[in-house]
Amino acid sequence: MTEPVPPPLRWWGWGDRDTSIPAGLAHLLRDELRIPVLPSDAGRPQPPALAPSALGGDGLVAELRELCGDGAVTTDDEARVRHAGGRSYLDLLALRSGEIAAPDAVVSPAGEEAVATVLRACARASCAVVPFGGGTSVVGGVRALRGRHRAVIALHLHRLDQGRAVDPVSMTATLQAGMTGPQAEAFLAERGLTLGHFPQSFEYATIGGFAATRSAGQASSGYGRFDDLVLGLRLVTPTGEIVVAGHPASAAGPSVRDLVLGSEGRLGVITEVTVKVRRRPTQPRYEAWSFAAFGDGVAAIRDLVQGRVAPDVARLSDPEETRVGMAMAAHGGAVERIGRRYLRLRGHQRGCLLIAGWDSDALLTGARQSEARAVLRRHQAIPLGAAPGRAWLRQRYHGPYLRDALLDADVLVETLETATDWATLHRLHEAVTDALRAALPGEGAPLIGCHVSHVYPSGASLYFTVLAAAGSDPRARWTAAKRSACEAILENCGTITHHHAVGTDHRPYLDREISPGAVAALCALARQVDPTEIMNPGKLLPD
Amino acid sequence: MTEPVPPPLRWWGWGDRDTSIPAGLAHLLRDELRIPVLPSDAGRPQPPALAPSALGGDGLVAELRELCGDGAVTTDDEARVRHAGGRSYLDLLALRSGEIAAPDAVVSPAGEEAVATVLRACARASCAVVPFGGGTSVVGGVRALRGRHRAVIALHLHRLDQGRAVDPVSMTATLQAGMTGPQAEAFLAERGLTLGHFPQSFEYATIGGFAATRSAGQASSGYGRFDDLVLGLRLVTPTGEIVVAGHPASAAGPSVRDLVLGSEGRLGVITEVTVKVRRRPTQPRYEAWSFAAFGDGVAAIRDLVQGRVAPDVARLSDPEETRVGMAMAAHGGAVERIGRRYLRLRGHQRGCLLIAGWDSDALLTGARQSEARAVLRRHQAIPLGAAPGRAWLRQRYHGPYLRDALLDADVLVETLETATDWATLHRLHEAVTDALRAALPGEGAPLIGCHVSHVYPSGASLYFTVLAAAGSDPRARWTAAKRSACEAILENCGTITHHHAVGTDHRPYLDREISPGAVAALCALARQVDPTEIMNPGKLLPD
Repeated sequence: MTEPVPPPLRWWGWGDRDTSIPAGLAHLLRDELRIPVLPSDAGRPQPPALAPSALGGDGLVAELRELCGDGAVTTDDEARVRHAGGRSYLDLLALRSGEIAAPDAVVSPAGEEAVATVLRACARASCAVVPFGGGTSVVGGVRALRGRHRAVIALHLHRLDQGRAVDPVSMTATLQAGMTGPQAEAFLAERGLTLGHFPQSFEYATIGGFAATRSAGQASSGYGRFDDLVLGLRLVTPTGEIVVAGHPASAAGPSVRDLVLGSEGRLGVITEVTVKVRRRPTQPRYEAWSFAAFGDGVAAIRDLVQGRVAPDVARLSDPEETRVGMAMAAHGGAVERIGRRYLRLRGHQRGCLLIAGWDSDALLTGARQSEARAVLRRHQAIPLGAAPGRAWLRQRYHGPYLRDALLDADVLVETLETATDWATLHRLHEAVTDALRAALPGEGAPLIGCHVSHVYPSGASLYFTVLAAAGSDPRARWTAAKRSACEAILENCGTITHHHAVGTDHRPYLDREISPGAVAALCALARQVDPTEIMNPGKLLPD
Repeated sequence: MTEPVPPPLRWWGWGDRDTSIPAGLAHLLRDELRIPVLPSDAGRPQPPALAPSALGGDGLVAELRELCGDGAVTTDDEARVRHAGGRSYLDLLALRSGEIAAPDAVVSPAGEEAVATVLRACARASCAVVPFGGGTSVVGGVRALRGRHRAVIALHLHRLDQGRAVDPVSMTATLQAGMTGPQAEAFLAERGLTLGHFPQSFEYATIGGFAATRSAGQASSGYGRFDDLVLGLRLVTPTGEIVVAGHPASAAGPSVRDLVLGSEGRLGVITEVTVKVRRRPTQPRYEAWSFAAFGDGVAAIRDLVQGRVAPDVARLSDPEETRVGMAMAAHGGAVERIGRRYLRLRGHQRGCLLIAGWDSDALLTGARQSEARAVLRRHQAIPLGAAPGRAWLRQRYHGPYLRDALLDADVLVETLETATDWATLHRLHEAVTDALRAALPGEGAPLIGCHVSHVYPSGASLYFTVLAAAGSDPRARWTAAKRSACEAILENCGTITHHHAVGTDHRPYLDREISPGAVAALCALARQVDPTEIMNPGKLLPD
């Protein structure tokens, strides 16, 4: 089952196709948020008029063309708009309104050596460099900021798209950083292998982006986060190169691998990554369960992961997310009505849905499934069978497509995420939900759903989805709500980001997250490898 | 089963008791190394005469006594000798010969605040600081080097010996860095918990030392390396403090946790560590298996770990280590003779011993055992039952005790270790064995055994033990052999250290291990947190 390579992201949104709002969700928006969803005839946004490129007719462009080839450097407005930022709600608002900071040029080097020469040329010319993979950041990680420099380029890595090596004995593969999720999986599938890394951005995001942001995929419970999958890598910096050999483990000092993972382009450009791979599963099995209450579900998945029998995908929705999800999936058929009545009778009217997926090639998968089901039953879970599991699997990448339609309908829609230990999870869940609700007043109450989708022996992630009326100043409204949520996270022992990374948006909170001494230490390190400070300014670390 | 707290290390060796060389080993030494092992009447080494402390009558000593209490600061020769270094073969030679660099004082702060004030006082007074836990380093990590400073103190952390907190929901514990292995296990055992970290230095080494050196325990395949167990920690530096919250996972930039882990005292003093814990196992089960050849055993444990059914302890000896081990365990009984004859008949005369231990509280342990045995049988392993497994468990910490007796008998005895991917393991095993053999010429061939004891999906560790005649200049002889081994490691894709750390001994190889750019970056970071460069000079990073 090879994933097809998707078409490019449209410049103002996700994918290349329109998605309509499901009827059940439209009803919720109308009844609860007081938002009428009309048949969309919004027309498409007009491409914004950009200020002229600061590099128009500049010697740097000529030099970069010399280095990379004529076709690899462009100052066209269309290309500049396509590389103006990521895909957060704020990014989408900015793209639609035209209030964007676009890069002055887009440069696509053909390989690692060309990346190195581009960085050296930009350092000499005081031009900032924003490494660009899939452009799917939702934290401002690829905004075209120039910092103290006279210009900024987007360094698009799509030409670094080759699988370099596979070692079927050690079960590793070396992949160029510009490969997208589908490209990497296609390369591995030919050899019967998989990376097992499937975040919602999978169709567009790249291997280098996964590494630079410490991404976590939907099957992280089974395959590990992307940082668990990485063994070695190559980082090209403005002053040279850092190569991390892919040893299975080492005690040779602080982990350089873990300095580059999460470095978000501030230290340089990741050009190549060596990852663990697995054999492709022959019989993936997804199924759904219902819990009477969120606490029951949380206790169950904690027992699963602490007992080492967690499914590869474990995704538990809170009552609100379950309710919204069921509304979206509703078709009004008789079987569905009977099912709902049954769950109500069993006390699950505010129930929580768990998706459990066994998707790996490990031995004992059958025994793990049986044991996991026994644990779930001990926590009074009701099995809902395989159909909802398969439905989830079909729609695992759909969320961002739907967002464009919601923005058309004037809905504020955004996600945010955190993680904490099991003992604090409920407190954090409530605090963030309350903070968001309080910060998003209006005629209708916002819909704030949450799920746990990454589980660890000591704790788990929380992923919130917010739907609210956009109001008259959506940017200010979301900015205030996000600030409230971040404060609630930090006050309740959450991490400011479990897998979205820091970018521009979480930068104000980094001191409190990792302590000021650590921020100062990382800044000193960044200055050593990038003394001219051209790499991705404005992101991750304070300047 | 609470581990008893052992008595202090004797100043010139290990433990507090004499161990005699087993008869079978004595025969091997006589027959193959041409070393006669005589009844030991060597007498004990005389404590060396030290140069006077550079801090005798110094204002810094008075200041430190003011800060820490009179009894917490000493310039006594006995204390200075006890903190002059670790327990490598070179350290032991130096202690026996009296050619040691002892610290000018030994300081034992009562807690984290006292550690911070001591560091600030030492920075003002240009006095180097060597953090000291169990003093078990075998790579020169605690040698009392003063760098460019006028004096050096050993900062002994034994008073930071408290368990701070246990969270039985999240299964975590917060432990002070000075707790030894037995102290930590005793604290956890009262709560039905275990850390599961049992390196050979377990009886003496400390929680802080495990973290600072990225230690790996004998049960690492089941419980993880120490760096896998650490969630959060506190590091006191000369300029402040770095606190890593114990989130289960985070994407907030480069991992600060992984900067402090492996920092070997060069950035500051780890004062507290939050670790994952597990329920104590009720029925640990250890057993032994024999393989006809090392390659069969390696293939089997690779299948186990890649299939996710590896035992918690998986320890495979090569033919030479198996032969020496059997000689040491030999009692000459009839059952033993019959057993040997049986193995010979089955083609195992150059067989390899595997110790497999199931020692954790995970669900499905029984199913994992059955599946693992099926995998072992597919690789033609012969079960040897539980007795050799239990024998190994009884003797798991014995090696260093025996070393003192071997030094008395003029045997050169040392270990070294590395790790690489599965595809390279055999080449590396042969290359290091050959390099050591070539570098240790003499009348008798050296005994060079090796085992795999830490397994990962992508590769495994190799741990070599060398026994040879000491010769006329044992220091030069081992230094040359170690250099040859390190070159063989680096030329054959091994890491310079899998779990012994860098210290002074591996420092010359760090550039090649992590690349010069990474070394420069880490040096810049170290200068930021320790601008006066008082912390553990001469270790880990170039000055």
